[in-house]
This record gives sequence, C-alpha cells and structure tokens, in this order.
Amino acid sequence: MDISKIQNQLKKFAIERDWEQFHNPKNLSMALSVEASELVEIFQWLKPEESNSPNQKQIQEINSEVADIAMYLLRFCSILEIDIEEAIKNKLEKNAEKYPVNLSKGNSQKYNQRED
Amino acid sequence: MDISKIQNQLKKFAIERDWEQFHNPKNLSMALSVEASELVEIFQWLKPEESNSPNQKQIQEINSEVADIAMYLLRFCSILEIDIEEAIKNKLEKNAEKYPVNLSKGNSQKYNQRED
Amino acid sequence: MDISKIQNQLKKFAIERDWEQFHNPKNLSMALSVEASELVEIFQWLKPEESNSPNQKQIQEINSEVADIAMYLLRFCSILEIDIEEAIKNKLEKNAEKYPVNLSKGNSQKYNQRED
Amino acid sequence: MDISKIQNQLKKFAIERDWEQFHNPKNLSMALSVEASELVEIFQWLKPEESNSPNQKQIQEINSEVADIAMYLLRFCSILEIDIEEAIKNKLEKNAEKYPVNLSKGNSQKYNQRED
Repeated sequence: MDISKIQNQLKKFAIERDWEQFHNPKNLSMALSVEASELVEIFQWLKPEESNSPNQKQIQEINSEVADIAMYLLRFCSILEIDIEEAIKNKLEKNAEKYPVNLSKGNSQKYNQRED
Repeated sequence: MDISKIQNQLKKFAIERDWEQFHNPKNLSMALSVEASELVEIFQWLKPEESNSPNQKQIQEINSEVADIAMYLLRFCSILEIDIEEAIKNKLEKNAEKYPVNLSKGNSQKYNQRED
Repeated sequence: MDISKIQNQLKKFAIERDWEQFHNPKNLSMALSVEASELVEIFQWLKPEESNSPNQKQIQEINSEVADIAMYLLRFCSILEIDIEEAIKNKLEKNAEKYPVNLSKGNSQKYNQRED
Repeated sequence: MDISKIQNQLKKFAIERDWEQFHNPKNLSMALSVEASELVEIFQWLKPEESNSPNQKQIQEINSEVADIAMYLLRFCSILEIDIEEAIKNKLEKNAEKYPVNLSKGNSQKYNQRED
C-alpha cells in the first residue's frame, strides 16, 4: 500500500474543501474513535461466533468503517508527521518482549496484569 | 507499506501465543476502539492548537497508540479477509460524491446533515 | 440518588483545582468516552457468558469505571444545564414507539434497520 | 432520581422484547461506549468554546445521547448488581486523595503522570 499517495489524496481533499482548519490532532483523534465505535456497533449484539460470518449488508458497512478508520489514522499521522510503518515495527518488537510465548500462551491478560 | 507481511507477522504472533481463540471480529473491534480511546485520552484536556505540538513524552505515547490501532485494524481485516486498500479506494470515490467542493467548502457538517 | 448534590460536589471539586477551564462539553464528551472504553477493555477478550461473572479484581475495576462514567456524565449535564432525569423519561417514551413489542421480539436490530 | 424505578422500567422493556439474551455485561459495555461516541461525534469538529453553545438541533441530539448513555449505564449496573451511588461515593473519596488541591491546581495531568 502506498501510504504517502493516500495521505496526499486526503490532504488534497481537505485543502479543496477548506477543511484543514478542522484537522488538528485533537479533532482527528475524536473522529477516529467515533469511526471505531461505528465498527463496534455492527457487532455489539452479535455472539462472537456470529461475528465471524457477517451478512452481505454488514460486510459493506464493515468495509466502509474500516476505510474511515484507516483514512483518519493516515490523516492523523500525516498532520503529526508520524511514520506509521516505523511505529508498527517498533511496537512489534516491544510486544515480543512484553508477551513472551511461555508467559502468554492462551493468556489474554495485559502484560502488567499477568500473575506470573 | 507491505500490508500482507505485517498481517502475517501478526498472525504468527497470535498463533504462537494461542491467541487466535480471542481474535474474532467482535473482540477485535472492541480492542481497536479501546486503543483509539487511548489516543483520545492524550488530547482530552489539550486545546486544539496545543494538540499540534505534543511534547516528547506525548509523541512516544502517540506513536505507540497509532501502532496499536493500525495493528488491530490490520488483524481485523485479515480475519474477515477485507482488502483494506480496495476499501479505502472505494471510500475515497464515495466521499468525493458526498462532499462536492461547492457544498462542503469550510463546512464540516456530515453530508446528510447539510442544509443546502 | 440526589443528582444535584453530586453535581455540586463535582463542581466544587473542579473549582478548588481550577479545572473549570478544562470542563467544556467537547472535552467532557472525550473524557466520558475514554472512561466508557476503559470499561470495554475489561471485557474485550472475555466470552459474553464469562462477562456475567467477573472476579473480585474485575468487580473493583468495574465499580471504578462505572463511577467515572457517571461522574463525567453528571458533570457534562451540569455544564450544559441538561435535566438528565427528564432526558431519560423522554427517551423511554420514544423507545417504546420505535421498538413496539411485536416488531422487536427477540430482534436486536436498530429500528431503522429492521426489515419489517 | 429514583434509580431503581428506572432500572425496573429498563428490565421490563427488555423482558417484553426478549432482549435479555443480548444484555450481558460485555455487550452492554459495547453499547454504552457506542453511545458515548455518538455524543463525541456532535462535538468533534467544534471549537471547545463553540461546544458551550450548541444550537437547538444539537441540544436535542445531546439530550438523546445523554439519555442513551445513562440508560445503558443503569442497565449495566442492574445486571451486575452494582450500587452506582455507592460507587460514585467511593470514587469521590479516592479522587480527593489522588488529586490534592496543592498538586492539582490548574493541572489536568493524571495523578500518575504528574511531575511533582
């Protein structure tokens, strides 16, 4: 995926509509969390196993929400000049340290709540 | 960004820890929204203009949360076999229709709340 | 529950700490949603049936998050002079219209998504 | 506010519609956070000072969301037999300890992030 290309498209979209005035990190974090909740809403009354098999209408909604989340995330990173690929790489390394296989096997507890 | 490569790393990480049992779309949507809120928390008491200049500690936290959001989003898409790049492309086209420049200039209202 | 009394306590708490400058509706809505997500985090990897029987530590966390949510909600209503009891009464009436028993029986769909 | 009375109304509403099957703590925490985000959505592009003066339409939406949040919170507490008034009382006491006036004056930092 060409992150920079999408970020440039999002920037152009905002500039053309004079929306840059709204796109500060505070507001974008709000918009991102609102979209994340719209994804949650699709699943809130479903059983976990039902959530594995969304129907056609739900799949469309899910695709739409996933795109909204991704776009606000990329726009947010663009505004604060965050290299998302680098951020993911660093976090993957940290998670490997925090969640060693022997302590985490079948255990969903957060690393700082684990009873070792 | 090589989406598939990261998704494979995340899958391997989950399999090694026997975490696949927790990773259904319902649970992953919850985890994603929790991480989005952790990003919101950083900005909740800041003025919008202050949010443009986070300090060093905040930048580290922001990078960490951004990575968490991205990783849960990619894991979610992996589980439901959603092509995130295609989803973004489709949404960008729809947004261009919903928010024509002449109706949206300097106007942050949602397309269905706009008073034309 | 004496809503006004609690709202007065929260107001006094904010004034003493010079926190009124942070307590506008925008910021308080953010804080409220952050606390709601902290409640979600407790349940994110649990099966629905497991969530019915939280352990002692989880019960403490749940009580703490529930209080945070309630307090931000009351503070928010205080700032905007919203009568929460009246708001609930009105919503209960509207919900009874939107979700008539015969159309809603065993059906969790939102009223505007129902296939009648 | 007569909490028990409202909780009984909500319980009756759920039983009549056979919705008790959906109302476990996990699902209710999701619904609560979704409603909290719908409140956030109203304010996401507004300046903090603008959020102090919502227009008539926004006031109606705000009342509606506040009611939804309160009702899911009360339903959640009902299911887990949490005494919300007691929870608030305990939290107010803890907050007074965590945020002493001299350390917190004009300082919005979380107690565990404060640089004393």
